[in-house]
Amino acid sequence: MSIAIAESAHGGFTDWMGHIQQRTETALAALLPDASISPQRLHSAMRYAVLGGGKRVRALLVHAAGELAGAAPVRLDRLACAVEFIHAYSLVHDDMPCMDDDVLRRGKPTVHVEYDEATALLAGDALQTLAFQVLADAQVADSPAGQLAMVGLLASASGSRGMAGGQAIDLESVGKQLSREELEFMHVHKTGALIRASVLLGARAGDPIADEDLRHLDHYAKLVGLLFQVVDDILDTVADTATLGKTAGKDADNDKPTYVSLLGLQDARRLAREMLADAHAALAPLGPRAARLGALADYIVHRTF
Amino acid sequence: MSIAIAESAHGGFTDWMGHIQQRTETALAALLPDASISPQRLHSAMRYAVLGGGKRVRALLVHAAGELAGAAPVRLDRLACAVEFIHAYSLVHDDMPCMDDDVLRRGKPTVHVEYDEATALLAGDALQTLAFQVLADAQVADSPAGQLAMVGLLASASGSRGMAGGQAIDLESVGKQLSREELEFMHVHKTGALIRASVLLGARAGDPIADEDLRHLDHYAKLVGLLFQVVDDILDTVADTATLGKTAGKDADNDKPTYVSLLGLQDARRLAREMLADAHAALAPLGPRAARLGALADYIVHRTF
Repeated sequence: MSIAIAESAHGGFTDWMGHIQQRTETALAALLPDASISPQRLHSAMRYAVLGGGKRVRALLVHAAGELAGAAPVRLDRLACAVEFIHAYSLVHDDMPCMDDDVLRRGKPTVHVEYDEATALLAGDALQTLAFQVLADAQVADSPAGQLAMVGLLASASGSRGMAGGQAIDLESVGKQLSREELEFMHVHKTGALIRASVLLGARAGDPIADEDLRHLDHYAKLVGLLFQVVDDILDTVADTATLGKTAGKDADNDKPTYVSLLGLQDARRLAREMLADAHAALAPLGPRAARLGALADYIVHRTF
Repeated sequence: MSIAIAESAHGGFTDWMGHIQQRTETALAALLPDASISPQRLHSAMRYAVLGGGKRVRALLVHAAGELAGAAPVRLDRLACAVEFIHAYSLVHDDMPCMDDDVLRRGKPTVHVEYDEATALLAGDALQTLAFQVLADAQVADSPAGQLAMVGLLASASGSRGMAGGQAIDLESVGKQLSREELEFMHVHKTGALIRASVLLGARAGDPIADEDLRHLDHYAKLVGLLFQVVDDILDTVADTATLGKTAGKDADNDKPTYVSLLGLQDARRLAREMLADAHAALAPLGPRAARLGALADYIVHRTF
């Protein structure tokens, strides 16, 4: 399979990606409380959990969707940070001994290893709070009502019927044989909800978008959310720990159902290809202004092949 | 000392309190996802953590301050629930083995004992999210901008420079000799911030309040927040586990600094009396419409004497 991230076709996608990753890093560092502010250890742990790692896929999706809607980049930075704070909090808690008990994340010791469990728990808690504070404290939409809807959207994507719910289903599924439908239900929540929220938040930060176009974007977002997980499962099987920056083969070791364990490696790869094609098809009606989103879907799949 | 919660003076305070506690319980039950909705175990744990216990002091403060501002009770229910969800999440996480490692809360096994640690972690996480969702999803202020300010207020009271920060300072202080200033700094964050937010959220849900009156209310709220903690420390010393519904003497056993360990029981009681008088003084300029808030301060102290 050839996934060409052609610079010519996507207008300097790699440069754009590097630029967004860099400005996201700067925005995250500015919004996180300084480690010199009391309580220092907590603030230090929060910064450790968030900064200096990650591909910032969610931030990239916020910006790509936001550009499509003509949103101001400074608004998109804030939205990207809110989503990345939620993502970071979920990783900190997910890595804790009572959950996945992992020691390595983004090539560094996990927060509870570098600090301690109590600090990791509180750092995750405070990162979640910070996400909502960031959404409330400065203008990120044309109207306060629109901004309030964004708070609701992020909350609904993160809570018990979104990301946290997906993690709970994941816990319950250890050692169980899941059907493809059940596996999909889990991932739609665990990873998909926040990926989808990233696209929708970006899209709502600019000029009003026609309902039909929002539906196309939402369809794309759902596909990319699942695609991301399928690719993650493939990577967990084929890559080594050094490449991943987190412990490889962890899900299989934990007897967790994955797309690879369910479908086999070949069919998981075929599924990824099909979903990628569907994602491009969903974007087609939006025309060339959706090119970045298309390139992002390519990039997500490119990690595996 | 005579703390008379005179029905005649406070217009049926006990009846009012029972009424608010009951409607808070109903509102909490309605806003929590049903335990039959997937993921069932998570939703069941969230309901277990929140329902069927607690004096709902924060909800009472929301309603008392909101009545003063002429706010619609249905708005106050929502605000009260948001604050109680934050409070409940903090208790669930605080009781976990890596924090206070407590097995009893409100006379029942703590969430990680009744369920498991991972479920307790996720239930706390999802309860925090639900608090913000509840603030965003229906009208609780006269304008969306005012409502957005409420989201910011709750976030700032809950995060690393509010409640979660106070818990981090608490962790760092175990086994240390704190000065009264340091102890106060910890409690202003750990307990005080959310108590203060309860009063301010209620006050902002109704008719606009003059800045000067808001300052009086804020002063009262800060005093009540600290008062609550002083009384908690006294109770932890003098009451038994059955009366408290949580493990008595826990802070002293954990070598945690308390107002009683710092000042002695007599002076801690004197401090509580002084702060109560100050709280009443802060309310005086607001006249009779602040009577409920005054009675609530009496009620908080009454628990100890």
